[in-house]
Amino acid sequence: MTPQNNNYLNVKDLSFVNDIKSMAVIGASAKRDFFFLRNHYDTFKGPVYAINPTVKEISNFPKENIFPSIKNVPGDVDFAFITVPRNKVLSVIDDCVEKGVKLVSIFTAEFSDAGTEEGKTLEEELLRRAQNKVRILGPNGLGLFYPKIGLAWRPNFPTISGNIGFIAQSGGICNIAIYSSLELGIKFSKVFSFGNGADLDFVDLLDFLIKDPETEIILCYIEGIKLGRIGVLRAILKENKKPIVVLKGGKSEPGVRAANTHTASISGDYKIWKNFFRQYNIIDVDSLEQLLHTARLIDCYGIFKANNLAVLSISGGYGIVLVDIIEKYGMKIPPFSSETQKEISKRFFISGTSSNNPLDFAAQFFVATSVQEVIDIVLSAKEIDGLIIDLPGFYLTLPPRIQDPSAFLNTVLNYLSLGHKHHKPLIVITQHMTRPKTIHEFLMELKQRNVPLFGDPLEFISLLPKISNYLKKDTK
Amino acid sequence: MTPQNNNYLNVKDLSFVNDIKSMAVIGASAKRDFFFLRNHYDTFKGPVYAINPTVKEISNFPKENIFPSIKNVPGDVDFAFITVPRNKVLSVIDDCVEKGVKLVSIFTAEFSDAGTEEGKTLEEELLRRAQNKVRILGPNGLGLFYPKIGLAWRPNFPTISGNIGFIAQSGGICNIAIYSSLELGIKFSKVFSFGNGADLDFVDLLDFLIKDPETEIILCYIEGIKLGRIGVLRAILKENKKPIVVLKGGKSEPGVRAANTHTASISGDYKIWKNFFRQYNIIDVDSLEQLLHTARLIDCYGIFKANNLAVLSISGGYGIVLVDIIEKYGMKIPPFSSETQKEISKRFFISGTSSNNPLDFAAQFFVATSVQEVIDIVLSAKEIDGLIIDLPGFYLTLPPRIQDPSAFLNTVLNYLSLGHKHHKPLIVITQHMTRPKTIHEFLMELKQRNVPLFGDPLEFISLLPKISNYLKKDTK
Repeated sequence: MTPQNNNYLNVKDLSFVNDIKSMAVIGASAKRDFFFLRNHYDTFKGPVYAINPTVKEISNFPKENIFPSIKNVPGDVDFAFITVPRNKVLSVIDDCVEKGVKLVSIFTAEFSDAGTEEGKTLEEELLRRAQNKVRILGPNGLGLFYPKIGLAWRPNFPTISGNIGFIAQSGGICNIAIYSSLELGIKFSKVFSFGNGADLDFVDLLDFLIKDPETEIILCYIEGIKLGRIGVLRAILKENKKPIVVLKGGKSEPGVRAANTHTASISGDYKIWKNFFRQYNIIDVDSLEQLLHTARLIDCYGIFKANNLAVLSISGGYGIVLVDIIEKYGMKIPPFSSETQKEISKRFFISGTSSNNPLDFAAQFFVATSVQEVIDIVLSAKEIDGLIIDLPGFYLTLPPRIQDPSAFLNTVLNYLSLGHKHHKPLIVITQHMTRPKTIHEFLMELKQRNVPLFGDPLEFISLLPKISNYLKKDTK
Repeated sequence: MTPQNNNYLNVKDLSFVNDIKSMAVIGASAKRDFFFLRNHYDTFKGPVYAINPTVKEISNFPKENIFPSIKNVPGDVDFAFITVPRNKVLSVIDDCVEKGVKLVSIFTAEFSDAGTEEGKTLEEELLRRAQNKVRILGPNGLGLFYPKIGLAWRPNFPTISGNIGFIAQSGGICNIAIYSSLELGIKFSKVFSFGNGADLDFVDLLDFLIKDPETEIILCYIEGIKLGRIGVLRAILKENKKPIVVLKGGKSEPGVRAANTHTASISGDYKIWKNFFRQYNIIDVDSLEQLLHTARLIDCYGIFKANNLAVLSISGGYGIVLVDIIEKYGMKIPPFSSETQKEISKRFFISGTSSNNPLDFAAQFFVATSVQEVIDIVLSAKEIDGLIIDLPGFYLTLPPRIQDPSAFLNTVLNYLSLGHKHHKPLIVITQHMTRPKTIHEFLMELKQRNVPLFGDPLEFISLLPKISNYLKKDTK
């Protein structure tokens, strides 16, 4: 087998992905009420064809787009989602080659993932039949989510396109990430679930996202990598300029054991991976939630420094706990310089507050202009890299003394957006459990202003030094 | 000063707290539209009196319950919330002593918390004037939240009484905890915000909660403790049989500095505290969220063992990450015994699943009876102490193939409740960001069945060994 090289490296050319204009679902079936067909048809921006040798009619689907074989489709088909029984996959691939389909995603499982000799042989045969003419995602994967063109394998996937690329073997992880992105405020350029990676593997897809003009931040969930691909991976990473955040599945012994079953990956010793990540300035996290939160933080503020932080709270006790957690993760809460302190202290006038770092506004929070001025001064200070704000939701269900609630909330939104003015991270914590329905609109507006909002300090504080460290390193 | 001893120890008798039947708000003021008066009046189950020498009428409040002084109230007043200006506090206390009020909560600040000699002297004078006849919470605190009798200082506090007691100096921390409890499913017996602790301090309140028949689990946020009270604290803890969970504010140097400002506490070296907590089998956590989550876990399952866990997921990748996190925190994901494995394997019949630990149900999740049987077997297994389940919310927005959604969801609720049958913890993760509105009722039902629900594995996994370790230790 001679793979098509897109340059001197052994990586496959996927530049055509950005030009996908038509698609088919092969194996659309009444058994699950045409689940994958309907999902794609709902949002895909070009023609969608249903391929099934026996189906003649599908409710709420144009009859003229149903064909017994992909070869019968009159126009081009750039992409096909294949969900036929395993024993039909080879002939379907032959058809796709003949039709000139550029990319297929094979959902059908029980190839090498079955762990049997038969499955392995079938996967090898699949590759041979594809003849390097049609590129394959899978088998045993969900393929490609590409919101810009409405390519989506599940219902209610987000329809807005963004700048974050995600690669995972596991389709389930992709589902959680994609559904979460809506609520979190991050937007994907492309998500690849490559399953067994028989043809397109982690290295090919990473190379594609590194070059993809639509992608600025790259997220990966990986369980393992074929040994023969490490050299190519190193060469690709050497040239990479985009932030890459990785969640490695299989760090512990039972995790490795499970990964071997899950995607037949050789996941190897995590220590080796850890060194590798360090060498190539890859941000390494512990959970899917951290992977997405890191993307959100970088998306909002770019890569930032977070060595010296300020804290602002309404509850002094909560502020002290924040300080302890921040220091635990190796960052500092320095005192303000005397000039900064002087300017800040002037603006505190209610008892029970504290104008030192950590700032404690207590009831003076309701004098929003004073908070705004203080935040502006704090973020102007050279000694401060960023600001963490504790804002329990119930303080936004306003007491009667606030005479113009919408003006008040608008001021709050304005000062929470000040991180962008100063190019420093300003991060808000509104505890998950203190969010009355009445503040939903406020939180949505915060999201739209690209202010990262968390529900628990332990969701993100450990991520700040990881982002900050990225700055210090040079890719070797 | 000779404090009233309730036994040989220097702790104050608070047994009368459980018999509070009447209350007054002294200093009810139009300036904040009678904020504290209205909050208490909304929910308190006995008579509420408004005390203000100049106010004659208050909208939506019975005129006959307004008095110029507490001395004018005809009947008994067991409890008074004091929010008068600082220079009025002493005479108000004199009145309370004369009236025979048992407990007051002084919200007014700028006593010892001001850090001035004047404030300190005023606080000492306050104690003298109380003559040990009226017990004081505060000054500079929010006092007592006691849902059983509807005693609540803020609007929309929960009205259902429970078994969890909470002590904190900081009122802001109490507010976050109380509002969070609703959503989290924990219920408080009593919450004390004791501010400066001039009279009733941490030790008195802890002693009360240890003896309180309405309290089973004790939560504390402490910044520091008076040096002279450590001996008494040790004596109390020696006899204690209830689980105590502590969040220590001021673990880091800047945290200590801030705590000294916040409540004039001597918070001391955290290493000493840590040893102290270990010696008295106190569970020590890092955030307010962890404090509440620990209470939730213990409330649902009591103190439990969590050395060997099973994991069940719909996404294999997410399950592997869970395994890695669980192992990182020192717990084990053991293989099932051969008998257990045999019984489990029989019940897996769809490709792409895994019947080993971690269990991966993939699409077989929709065959709910098979999941139910497997969970029952897993929790019966001697080698397994508990089960962590990954259940992304979108899998509960059911595909068309589920013909009877309510029967399906009911089966899911039943099997998620199986932890109670086997007296082993079964914990559910439904990612915060994957909870469509349509599953709200399902999640509420889960809460009512006392099944702990988390939105992120890092919220609770580190807490499991802390709870598990509690079993291993004897209080010395």
